[in-house]
Amino acid sequence: MTATPQGAVLSATLEKIREKARLLRIYSMCATTAAGSGHPTSCLSAAELMAAIFFQAMKFDPANPNSPAGDRFVLSKGHAAPILYAALAEAGAFPVSRVMTLRQFSSELEGHPTPLVPGVDAATGSLGQGLSVGAGLALGARANKSSARVYVLLGDGEMAEGQVWEAAAFAAHYQLDNLTAVADVNALGQSERTMYRHDTEVYREKFAAQGWETEVIDGHDAAAVIAALERARSVSGRPQAIIARTEKGHGVSFVADKEGWHGKALSKEELQRALAEMGPIPEIPKDDGKSYARKSLPVPADFPPPAAPDYQPGQGVATREAYGTALKKLGAVNPKVVALDGDVKNSTFAETLEKAYPDRLYQGYIAEQNLVSVGVGLAAQGLVPFVATFACFLSRAYDQVRMAAISRSNLNLCGSHCGVSIGEDGPSQMGLEDLAMFRAVPGATVLYPSDGVSAERLTEAAARRPGICYLRTSRPKKPAVYSNDEKFPVPGFKVPRQSGNDRATVIAAGVTLHEALQAYEELKAKGIAIRVVDLYCVKPLDGAALGEQVRATGGRLVMVEDHYPEGGLGEAVLSALAARGTALAAVRHLAPHRVPHSGKPEELLDAFGISARHIVAAVEQFQ
Amino acid sequence: MTATPQGAVLSATLEKIREKARLLRIYSMCATTAAGSGHPTSCLSAAELMAAIFFQAMKFDPANPNSPAGDRFVLSKGHAAPILYAALAEAGAFPVSRVMTLRQFSSELEGHPTPLVPGVDAATGSLGQGLSVGAGLALGARANKSSARVYVLLGDGEMAEGQVWEAAAFAAHYQLDNLTAVADVNALGQSERTMYRHDTEVYREKFAAQGWETEVIDGHDAAAVIAALERARSVSGRPQAIIARTEKGHGVSFVADKEGWHGKALSKEELQRALAEMGPIPEIPKDDGKSYARKSLPVPADFPPPAAPDYQPGQGVATREAYGTALKKLGAVNPKVVALDGDVKNSTFAETLEKAYPDRLYQGYIAEQNLVSVGVGLAAQGLVPFVATFACFLSRAYDQVRMAAISRSNLNLCGSHCGVSIGEDGPSQMGLEDLAMFRAVPGATVLYPSDGVSAERLTEAAARRPGICYLRTSRPKKPAVYSNDEKFPVPGFKVPRQSGNDRATVIAAGVTLHEALQAYEELKAKGIAIRVVDLYCVKPLDGAALGEQVRATGGRLVMVEDHYPEGGLGEAVLSALAARGTALAAVRHLAPHRVPHSGKPEELLDAFGISARHIVAAVEQFQ
Repeated sequence: MTATPQGAVLSATLEKIREKARLLRIYSMCATTAAGSGHPTSCLSAAELMAAIFFQAMKFDPANPNSPAGDRFVLSKGHAAPILYAALAEAGAFPVSRVMTLRQFSSELEGHPTPLVPGVDAATGSLGQGLSVGAGLALGARANKSSARVYVLLGDGEMAEGQVWEAAAFAAHYQLDNLTAVADVNALGQSERTMYRHDTEVYREKFAAQGWETEVIDGHDAAAVIAALERARSVSGRPQAIIARTEKGHGVSFVADKEGWHGKALSKEELQRALAEMGPIPEIPKDDGKSYARKSLPVPADFPPPAAPDYQPGQGVATREAYGTALKKLGAVNPKVVALDGDVKNSTFAETLEKAYPDRLYQGYIAEQNLVSVGVGLAAQGLVPFVATFACFLSRAYDQVRMAAISRSNLNLCGSHCGVSIGEDGPSQMGLEDLAMFRAVPGATVLYPSDGVSAERLTEAAARRPGICYLRTSRPKKPAVYSNDEKFPVPGFKVPRQSGNDRATVIAAGVTLHEALQAYEELKAKGIAIRVVDLYCVKPLDGAALGEQVRATGGRLVMVEDHYPEGGLGEAVLSALAARGTALAAVRHLAPHRVPHSGKPEELLDAFGISARHIVAAVEQFQ
Repeated sequence: MTATPQGAVLSATLEKIREKARLLRIYSMCATTAAGSGHPTSCLSAAELMAAIFFQAMKFDPANPNSPAGDRFVLSKGHAAPILYAALAEAGAFPVSRVMTLRQFSSELEGHPTPLVPGVDAATGSLGQGLSVGAGLALGARANKSSARVYVLLGDGEMAEGQVWEAAAFAAHYQLDNLTAVADVNALGQSERTMYRHDTEVYREKFAAQGWETEVIDGHDAAAVIAALERARSVSGRPQAIIARTEKGHGVSFVADKEGWHGKALSKEELQRALAEMGPIPEIPKDDGKSYARKSLPVPADFPPPAAPDYQPGQGVATREAYGTALKKLGAVNPKVVALDGDVKNSTFAETLEKAYPDRLYQGYIAEQNLVSVGVGLAAQGLVPFVATFACFLSRAYDQVRMAAISRSNLNLCGSHCGVSIGEDGPSQMGLEDLAMFRAVPGATVLYPSDGVSAERLTEAAARRPGICYLRTSRPKKPAVYSNDEKFPVPGFKVPRQSGNDRATVIAAGVTLHEALQAYEELKAKGIAIRVVDLYCVKPLDGAALGEQVRATGGRLVMVEDHYPEGGLGEAVLSALAARGTALAAVRHLAPHRVPHSGKPEELLDAFGISARHIVAAVEQFQ
């Protein structure tokens, strides 16, 4: 397993890789010292690995570094960004001088990689996500019938993250033989030695237990690295893990394998001492200030309109079910639409797509973190992924969603079973913080349909929109509110009930829209008119238009949502109105204020204060 | 490995366990049919396992089911709740008749277990968390010098969750030989067969690769189960995994190993058919309506005051550093205070506690999900855990925090490195959604100190408060704002600058408080007075008192936060004011509105709109 057939590597190749490794070390140290911060020792351990990947193994076109035809690379240990930038520069994607702008506000070369950098597909820096992204890229390459391979460089510290093993299981299950993981086992974490130190055999066993091809090598033996990468390319039917024993700070005597050097740049004096150990130092010109940031990032490709919604007036349908119907219709007109499932496809209705197109649902089993990051990889390959699970379980992948936003990923997510309206399963299955989560994702679109028509239209909107799109669907069947030809612009809202004499505006969405409509009838019977707003698009929010509605009812406002009161629909409305200076005369915010309980859906809507009865009472309190 | 020494188990014991398994099956089916929903087939696969754990292996006192002296049990596959309730009832914790109230609004026996049920320590139902909770319970038992053992029942579907393997690594690292995991490998997930179906060897290899003692058994062979549990108890130095091959729906011919039966109760007619296969059916009396919900849940024990803060006027200190100092001082007066670290203790300053008390920091390495759930287990054993990592990486464990709240856990979390003020590391390392996350946790306390004194006082407050407490700390060193004897009640806020002639109220916290204080000086030089509010307690929030401040400045309000605009300090304030009907004349909300970038902290505060300059400009716009 640890054979290093040095003789098999041509000496010219070997010399080239050794020299590239030497240069990558030099550039990494110079850049971090210039920045005054960063992780040079984490770069030094990876120099031979990076050199062999970039200059021997990968098909890489520096003129088109993000071309799907080329092999892909993911730096899962994102804090080693300087050596990635050095490799990209040395490969010709931008000048080496640019690497010296590392971490400056004016530079696209940030402390951790983002897709603004040519050649980068996804942001890394939250550890343990890169192998999932790589699996998504590899799966996407296969879906695109591309022969491109995917390389992922992992740190040993991050292999403590469970997501790495979710990804390993997933990649083996899908037999992703176009995926190679290279583990840089330098045995030093940030604050102390890693759990397994240099016990490379533990990592090998873990990958082997998942069904990977595995090999342990000396990560500073360039010939061994080259040979291992070559062997990996010849493996068929399964992904390959190369476990490389390395030394943090390798190549610089006074930092090598020393604790206390994580995330510290060398001082200028220390840099000189280090460079003196490195052989001839190339001249690095001064940066000319020209940005090499990618001019444009991928947006979802256009596609023809899908079949229109087709519901009978008053027909009962759950928005989760309409989501599945919409996916199937989108699938018919857009071959890039795919679904990712966490073994709940019969609850989210992602199975409706699978039944029509069996190869377009990827089963990720119960591993939400991996699901989301695989979605980022698929999106980077031009697919239009929809990740769906219960809304509450997307909280399992909030960090991955956060990184997807930094990745500027065109990723769609659907959270079903939101709120107390799911009933008997109880609080662990209720998504009551998902609006807060997704609203706090920069640039995200947050959609919340209330009937079959809006659910189908908004699913289509998500497939067309760039960035993170979140769809919140509900479990209960509810009657259609809208006719089949109704359109749902984003941003936007509907006003299904209004008059010139409304006592209050009631803003609702999803199941609470139905409660509001019932409250409208009950109040009407008492001679009280209300305006009902369906806030189907929670973010972005057209505050000016919304403010007009509220002003028209004298600034009297009831907000009702099946979500905790913090960060959801109500606070979205308050923020939008405050920004526009809309005067509020009286506000009632109805929402579950404590951990809910099992019970019948109607019982819970009432017990947690968001049923029609509570809306009626709130409006009646307004004079 | 699969030996089943049947002869070693006494026949009387064997008969008892078989009969208990039979009864648990009957009760589980009757309860779910009575409820009209639930997961009977997931119970049927676990009947012999549950019977042997509860009636042979565990020391369990039904009169004191949550006593720390007794062995602990965690049902990680929480959807099998009915069989847990059946086992607790059969053991005498409450009458069997009570099990038949399953999932009713009036019953403490919810769809998934919560600690309201006698004998339950932590809520389960979000899969893959139970082994971490169990590791925390086992570690807590050891810390308490208790000989109690911990049993965790896992499903095979949930073993796709990476957290299970984080927990497995952690438990092996800490040599938790008082922890036994029992895996119910029934090969059927919710929507299809599991990834590994009945390949028990894969699970065994995965546990073995982590250093566990492992054994594969037939999970319906009661003698084999009893013998395996006995052998597990004799293992020293490492945790034990019993991999049990089972059949979903075992014991009922027409559901056994059938797809399409997950999460479905039998109809009344189907139940009769099933019971006809089960032998004699005991009479189950009608429930008398008496609740067996635990009357009180644990709260943190009281402790003497720690040493007071000791800062010089104007002394620069980062709140993250003061957090470490506070932990050390708390450690001196409260032996239950422990820290959990994700290999960032030198950044969060949890190492300050470790340096003083080396055995009171648990190193969890880079595995935040496990860290948080281990914390829940430790808290359930009466310890006072503080989990700390970068604020952004707590997003990795949001589901675990959510479940901790449903667990009514007394868990403290500290997120360091919040906001753009961290500087050069860039957006992947910036916590900009943590306030939104933690505000949307029901009952949580959210604290945000701005200087050393407030950081120390608020850390103490967290240690004393029940429920989830979140402390948000910052990277930059900032001068002391408060004198060492200042008190910080929760809820509460400070008004460090005010006059009778203030043009606006500026509400800030953490680093933005320092920007607000600078803006105060700049505006003062221009002859404009402002009121500065330090909202050190973001939740709960005293809206009435805050409203008075805002009213005193004519309803003119600037809110400035180093957090995305959604769900943070600003929306907390708007909600609190709206609830009280506080009229707002003009509002400006300063916050980073897009994905940030690397750069110097001051550069970023300014570029993302939250520096003193922006506050000055906002106030000057008010007339």
